[in-house]
Amino acid sequence: MKASRFFVSTLKEAPADAEVVSHKLMMRAGLIKRLSAGIYNYMPMGLRVIRKVEAIIREEMNRAGAVELLMPVVQPAELWQETGRFDKMGPELLRVKDRHDRDFIIQPTSEEVITDIARQELRSYKQLPRNFYHIQTKFRDERRPRFGVMRGREFTMKDAYSFDRDKDGAAKSYDAMFGAYRAIFDRFGLQYRAVAADTGAIGGDLSHEFQVIADTGEDAIVYCPDSDYAANIELAEAVAPAAPRAAAGAALAKTPTPGKSTCEDVADLLGVPLQTTVKSLVLATDERNEAGDITGTTVWLLLVRGDHSLNEVKTGKLPGLKAGWRFATVGEIEEHFGCKPGYLGPIGTRKPVKVIADRTVAAMSDFICGANAVDFHYTGANWGRDLPEPDLVADIRNVLPGDPSPDGKGTLAIQRGIEVGHVFYLGTKYSAAMSAVYLDENGKPQPMEMGCYGIGVTRILGAAIEQNHDERGIVWPAAIAPFEAVICPIGYDRSDDVRAAADQLHDALAAAGIDVILDDRGERPGAMFADWELIGVPWRVVISDRGLKAGTVEVQGRREAEATALPVAAAADTLKARLRG
Amino acid sequence: MKASRFFVSTLKEAPADAEVVSHKLMMRAGLIKRLSAGIYNYMPMGLRVIRKVEAIIREEMNRAGAVELLMPVVQPAELWQETGRFDKMGPELLRVKDRHDRDFIIQPTSEEVITDIARQELRSYKQLPRNFYHIQTKFRDERRPRFGVMRGREFTMKDAYSFDRDKDGAAKSYDAMFGAYRAIFDRFGLQYRAVAADTGAIGGDLSHEFQVIADTGEDAIVYCPDSDYAANIELAEAVAPAAPRAAAGAALAKTPTPGKSTCEDVADLLGVPLQTTVKSLVLATDERNEAGDITGTTVWLLLVRGDHSLNEVKTGKLPGLKAGWRFATVGEIEEHFGCKPGYLGPIGTRKPVKVIADRTVAAMSDFICGANAVDFHYTGANWGRDLPEPDLVADIRNVLPGDPSPDGKGTLAIQRGIEVGHVFYLGTKYSAAMSAVYLDENGKPQPMEMGCYGIGVTRILGAAIEQNHDERGIVWPAAIAPFEAVICPIGYDRSDDVRAAADQLHDALAAAGIDVILDDRGERPGAMFADWELIGVPWRVVISDRGLKAGTVEVQGRREAEATALPVAAAADTLKARLRG
Repeated sequence: MKASRFFVSTLKEAPADAEVVSHKLMMRAGLIKRLSAGIYNYMPMGLRVIRKVEAIIREEMNRAGAVELLMPVVQPAELWQETGRFDKMGPELLRVKDRHDRDFIIQPTSEEVITDIARQELRSYKQLPRNFYHIQTKFRDERRPRFGVMRGREFTMKDAYSFDRDKDGAAKSYDAMFGAYRAIFDRFGLQYRAVAADTGAIGGDLSHEFQVIADTGEDAIVYCPDSDYAANIELAEAVAPAAPRAAAGAALAKTPTPGKSTCEDVADLLGVPLQTTVKSLVLATDERNEAGDITGTTVWLLLVRGDHSLNEVKTGKLPGLKAGWRFATVGEIEEHFGCKPGYLGPIGTRKPVKVIADRTVAAMSDFICGANAVDFHYTGANWGRDLPEPDLVADIRNVLPGDPSPDGKGTLAIQRGIEVGHVFYLGTKYSAAMSAVYLDENGKPQPMEMGCYGIGVTRILGAAIEQNHDERGIVWPAAIAPFEAVICPIGYDRSDDVRAAADQLHDALAAAGIDVILDDRGERPGAMFADWELIGVPWRVVISDRGLKAGTVEVQGRREAEATALPVAAAADTLKARLRG
Repeated sequence: MKASRFFVSTLKEAPADAEVVSHKLMMRAGLIKRLSAGIYNYMPMGLRVIRKVEAIIREEMNRAGAVELLMPVVQPAELWQETGRFDKMGPELLRVKDRHDRDFIIQPTSEEVITDIARQELRSYKQLPRNFYHIQTKFRDERRPRFGVMRGREFTMKDAYSFDRDKDGAAKSYDAMFGAYRAIFDRFGLQYRAVAADTGAIGGDLSHEFQVIADTGEDAIVYCPDSDYAANIELAEAVAPAAPRAAAGAALAKTPTPGKSTCEDVADLLGVPLQTTVKSLVLATDERNEAGDITGTTVWLLLVRGDHSLNEVKTGKLPGLKAGWRFATVGEIEEHFGCKPGYLGPIGTRKPVKVIADRTVAAMSDFICGANAVDFHYTGANWGRDLPEPDLVADIRNVLPGDPSPDGKGTLAIQRGIEVGHVFYLGTKYSAAMSAVYLDENGKPQPMEMGCYGIGVTRILGAAIEQNHDERGIVWPAAIAPFEAVICPIGYDRSDDVRAAADQLHDALAAAGIDVILDDRGERPGAMFADWELIGVPWRVVISDRGLKAGTVEVQGRREAEATALPVAAAADTLKARLRG
């Protein structure tokens, strides 16, 4: 490919609305062009990356036995009404009426349509298992689209759906997809982690996110450097302290803490470690009758150590809170604690509340907590002696770096990640709602067990750049770079030698299947080099009259500080070895 | 590929709503599955065809210097308002409001977005010419979607857009695309014609439709078997008769023709050839003032020979009718002719009308026309003697088979076609409306000259099948067949010899790059053969124990009546030669 037959368009400055580095660099390198909020044109340079990402996904999906089809962008509302998602999904579901005033949606995902296909096509146990996928344009009307392709509205997603006879089969399908995803992300050449994730209402433990590691990632990934344990922060278990609760050593004392309403302030004031304090969080659950009217409210006091934070996902799985909880109102708090927030605690509440202590808190002694009186905290509080044992002890906090790994093999670390893939066991959620049944050996209808498996194709670009860039621009892994190598001739238009050598190298690399571009635009060397460093092509070959006189060309990897002079004749083989060797 | 890892799903009967053969066969062969009116899932078998069509298009577009990008499906209304199409386009433009109540459209095509890109990216004459294309999902909310993918609502289209400095440049870009389209349609292996088409308001002669020949096609294609002349019926010129008008030979006579209001009936009644009659068509044009109020109306009498039909596109280009015409009302007709329709003619109208005679009519003598009196026609009418020469003589009729070719090289024939591609010179229609200008050598802004070039990717499937099918199913050209060859083993599951021979042939063909599928589903031979004949795979190899004992396999082309027994060892090479030789 010669640059004059391609389209190279770079910017010196990123537009003001580009907040994160990947967005800025994608705009500057001419990968995308904004059309509307969260809607981008994929320019030729960006589309090449997308096509490479798609090709890798396709190969590995096919290898894993999934079969590609293509479901429409515009989908009839009827199917979405069958599962209830037409009404349940918020305004992020783009709804549209056709000329006959019939309801349609622009697909954000395709569970309904694939389940509709499955219930028509997959009638017998003999046809299972089955895994269909497509790579198609999606739309989610994000309230606040931002970060370029990272949180866009229109995007490309690969979504796969497996259909199995039973849970064992679904687990096998899940494992096959998990393996395919590992192969895909390995081939992308990105640092990533597959982290266990929450399955929400479905239950079971078959949900993993594929997170591309990046300091700028929105998600916290918990992992153990000494084992293969990895989970997202919502799921990562905080194990109970190994040591039993120490005996009480101090007397309970109502201690003045004027104006100190946070654990940090109280610890500072009293000159004690934050780890000796206990934080109070007040939740409420409402009981309702069949008509949906509230018939009663229970108030819950959740206790976590002062340096810990509440994990709302774990909280939502506790008995009594599963059906839905909310934070209590100030009115409810004052009614039950006789005190305004900031000084709340488990000792001496005005009305009874249900107390749930985090595992760590349950193992504390001589701790500090609010005294349910403005400007006072208790010090030297002890379970059993000063207050009854909690109603429930549970893991309700987010882990911290240094916490023991749940697999007992070391301590946990936390890093940031960008979710680009998700494998998920769906159970019969959709097949039951849409009567997608097959006939088993006995001719009895059974709901199909489903799984779904997504990869954000366009999001990969942003995540790859967040992970791989420097002050000069993008640093693509070779597998998904728009070009693997660029030939930068100095004086292509005026030196026959340079032109001949550049053309020859270009043809040799192209013949070897290397995705090479020859920059024949006639830019000055500085501007030309800056362009390709910004675009992030992994290998650059500079060909000049001066070099040719010495019989050499200069080869430089995008991450290398210096170029290497190589004999002209060796350049092609060297690049082939670097890229394919 | 083994069939067990793919998805083969055929139907014995087509659904009742499938009207045309391609729709029926696509449903039966499992290429598509209906999701909603005019909206289809592309099943794995159909998607393979789409991907092959896309690959051929992409290769030839790239070869012609076009550069691929990807524009969004959901596009902001603002751009469509700039060109006025947001309001001008009817309900076939699917309009949608996002969560912030902003207007968007689901793209039916992308002139506005590409022109928006061009006006930002292409600033200098040095950047021109430029041709961008994308292959993307489109939506047109057809009033009456039908014929499967032939007139669907959601479809895939390749649309390319060229930008040039001037008309000469635009003509070169047009020619390059015309050549690319020829290469694309040649590679598809379809019989087609590139026919000259009307450019409408743009003017010029740069518009061609690429029509796939099929008896069931909606379009009439005019061509000359003795030359390369081809045009659609709207455009094809009906040349003036070579012979001059003969001298009058009969006297004008007001002849009773009771109840005979058509030329056919009059010719029958009088026992004369239909070619001696003249048909009257009455049009009207309205003059309007600046406020748009009608200030006057002109009535036009158009005359074509009795066996000819009016060409409305040609009519719309005539002086006085260009700005828009309509058929006259009965009231206007009676006011001007003093007679109701059925007996109208140019002689003795009550009020003056403008008379436009088709070239053929202008050359007639002793002709028959309405007498402007119910139940009467004139016979023996002659220009100059019985009525003045017409105000205008013009080509206003559709050609008929046997008419002389406009290039003077023989006579015209007419066949039916399906439009699947269109190349079109746009001029500055969009660039002027959207201020897409470049700076010329003198730094002066100039509007870019544009062209647009579409191919209906999904429509190709329907057109290919309309052209290539028989009573057993589809007959794909090899280049766009879902598979090039199918291996049908008899007893794959119970004969080691058959399985080994089938696997070996499969691997040999796959290694040679032949797109082969091995049917290991365990169907009975009859059902298996019927499936692949329905699906239309070009080559079939049957491997059986009986054949293997004789050292042969049976090879049969989809169009061949009989199979050929070939030595086992020769099968792979024979197929390679047939498919690649």
